[in-house]
Amino acid sequence: MFGFKYFTPTKVVFGKDTEKQVADLVKEFGGKKLLIHYGGGSVIRSGLMQRVTDTLDAAGIEYVMLGGAVPNPHLGLVYEGIELCKKEGVDFILAVGGGSAIDSAKAIGYGVANGGDVWDFYDRKRKAEGCLPLGVILTLSATGSEMSDSSVITKEDGLIKRGYSSDFGRPKFAIMNPELTMTLPDYQTACGCTDIMMHTMERYFSQGGNMEITDALAEGLLRTVMNNARILVKDPKNYDARAEVMWAGSLAHNGLTGCGNDGGDWMAHKIEHELGGLYDVAHGAGLAAVWGSWARYVYKNCLPRFRRFAVNVMGVSAEGSDEEIALRGIEALEDFYRDINMPTNLKELGVDASDEDLALMAHKCAVGLGGSGGSAKVLYEADILEIFKASRG
Amino acid sequence: MFGFKYFTPTKVVFGKDTEKQVADLVKEFGGKKLLIHYGGGSVIRSGLMQRVTDTLDAAGIEYVMLGGAVPNPHLGLVYEGIELCKKEGVDFILAVGGGSAIDSAKAIGYGVANGGDVWDFYDRKRKAEGCLPLGVILTLSATGSEMSDSSVITKEDGLIKRGYSSDFGRPKFAIMNPELTMTLPDYQTACGCTDIMMHTMERYFSQGGNMEITDALAEGLLRTVMNNARILVKDPKNYDARAEVMWAGSLAHNGLTGCGNDGGDWMAHKIEHELGGLYDVAHGAGLAAVWGSWARYVYKNCLPRFRRFAVNVMGVSAEGSDEEIALRGIEALEDFYRDINMPTNLKELGVDASDEDLALMAHKCAVGLGGSGGSAKVLYEADILEIFKASRG
Repeated sequence: MFGFKYFTPTKVVFGKDTEKQVADLVKEFGGKKLLIHYGGGSVIRSGLMQRVTDTLDAAGIEYVMLGGAVPNPHLGLVYEGIELCKKEGVDFILAVGGGSAIDSAKAIGYGVANGGDVWDFYDRKRKAEGCLPLGVILTLSATGSEMSDSSVITKEDGLIKRGYSSDFGRPKFAIMNPELTMTLPDYQTACGCTDIMMHTMERYFSQGGNMEITDALAEGLLRTVMNNARILVKDPKNYDARAEVMWAGSLAHNGLTGCGNDGGDWMAHKIEHELGGLYDVAHGAGLAAVWGSWARYVYKNCLPRFRRFAVNVMGVSAEGSDEEIALRGIEALEDFYRDINMPTNLKELGVDASDEDLALMAHKCAVGLGGSGGSAKVLYEADILEIFKASRG
Repeated sequence: MFGFKYFTPTKVVFGKDTEKQVADLVKEFGGKKLLIHYGGGSVIRSGLMQRVTDTLDAAGIEYVMLGGAVPNPHLGLVYEGIELCKKEGVDFILAVGGGSAIDSAKAIGYGVANGGDVWDFYDRKRKAEGCLPLGVILTLSATGSEMSDSSVITKEDGLIKRGYSSDFGRPKFAIMNPELTMTLPDYQTACGCTDIMMHTMERYFSQGGNMEITDALAEGLLRTVMNNARILVKDPKNYDARAEVMWAGSLAHNGLTGCGNDGGDWMAHKIEHELGGLYDVAHGAGLAAVWGSWARYVYKNCLPRFRRFAVNVMGVSAEGSDEEIALRGIEALEDFYRDINMPTNLKELGVDASDEDLALMAHKCAVGLGGSGGSAKVLYEADILEIFKASRG
């Protein structure tokens, strides 16, 4: 196993009505003038925003608001947020929403706390030396951004989607009320469950260092998400199932499931980032659409873990050769995707990609990786193109 | 399930040679003048302390030293540490050792940061409003104090052992090098594994609120500790097994395995605290000695969880009545204790308790609980006495 760092300072307040604690939490972390950053109008229509601003008003906390964070959040809005924060003297950002609003808020925070162009961080040209403190009221379980060090931003010019990770960006607090996720469309709920599982699997399918305890935690997390994702297909208002998925989403990406391994594979994510950059598809659905093709391309190079995954997570029979068991595990996960109405290829995702587009995405992906990436099997541009082709359906 | 708070800000640096990072970490958290607090001479004899002070000297960090923290650490030394910190202008405490040194360091930190008698916090008379920041170099995997909010101190006058929990006491950083635990006597290693499991089981055996994901994590953690505790009986220098146990020890008590439940049972701990206060036995061994008697006294009141524990953790057959399965699980855990040379009753612990001593301990325990305690089954003084009697062996 490898040595590791583990740092998850985010204070989590989990349960019904927890959004009422927002003013106390903002004060605890020294916020006096907020930027409230959010996505579309759903948080307004649901009445959540009114409850939040009422609480802040009663506590005498000032704020300005900026909506419009979209899935695959755009750099343009980040720039707008940075200017707004500077102009208004904002000292704390409150993200209300899911990963889009939180990721966008982190980017704004980096922009305010560091000089120069914030895109430099995403473009690997500089490292941030700070971030405006931020808190979260989570309304969508998916990206784990509420406890993670990561954010992903899309530059409109060239549709380039890039992630940046820094401990400075970890939220100071995260308010998690599972009830706030109940109004989500079923498709988004399923996308979220797929993303949560993928964060765990990216770390699980690695070539080395996996600790027994980390594996046990990851496997338990994956089984929990599958059980509860299936419950939510039939019973979307099930509080307990919402809560299981919500907490799993945070634990899947706060670092816990990566302790002791080599950093993980992350190629399903990298491949999907190109899809998301070019087609603006839902991230979770994009992941489901490419995962099977990735898995079948790499499993022979990472056979012990694919076998273990098949038995311990997917619960398939351990009879037969390792390869047979591994393939049964991949099929079982695709069956799960179908159960929750997720795509298992680009066609089902609704993407009819030309040869040129596939080649462009493979090229951009390889460039973004600096030539190659992956742990289960190291992939180059030609490999990535093969996976894209196989994922057409 | 219940709502919960989760707050684990401790920065963990895990792996070989990580103690070399101590000066950087102290600086990161603003320490300029340290109290280095430790237990017996083992950290000096092993050369660890020399490496630590060399690193601090090279970084120009000043320090004073205070050794002598014993298992069931004493209030007297805490008072001494508080005075030393005040006299020397200490602004950061570095605990080098296991739970005894860390718990004692937390108490010193509370004493320095708050006026009045520090025992007030342990005696439930006041709540701390701060704590001197502290960091840890861990040399023994057991109490989880390196990431927890808890500390347990024994007042010599009356041998009263009491715990106090506050987020202020959570260490700023924890340096964990599994190699530093390799020189421990086998008995202490086994005691540590028992304590780690008990922290998880205290939260697991509750009457309500358990989340599926929390259960899955707890069960994975327990299986991991058992596997690796058995490895360490035969191969005490096994780095990977040391690492599994070390990381499990932190996760067992940082709050992760309690999310969503009712706070847990904690009666095995409360009962052992009386044993530890009166007889100065090793905490882990004391826990093992009373657990079986506690479990047999309460299991009928918490049957679904004892059944689940038996199947999912102890791996016993799920055939027969729930009661039969539950009892097989209790027996299987006692078999595990025997495998790692832990006692399963007071006689094996080396304690020949008089009727008067049992009555005194039951009385002190009940008083400390404010009359009663426990979740699996609420226990009063008469119940606690019955458990003590049954544990005689």
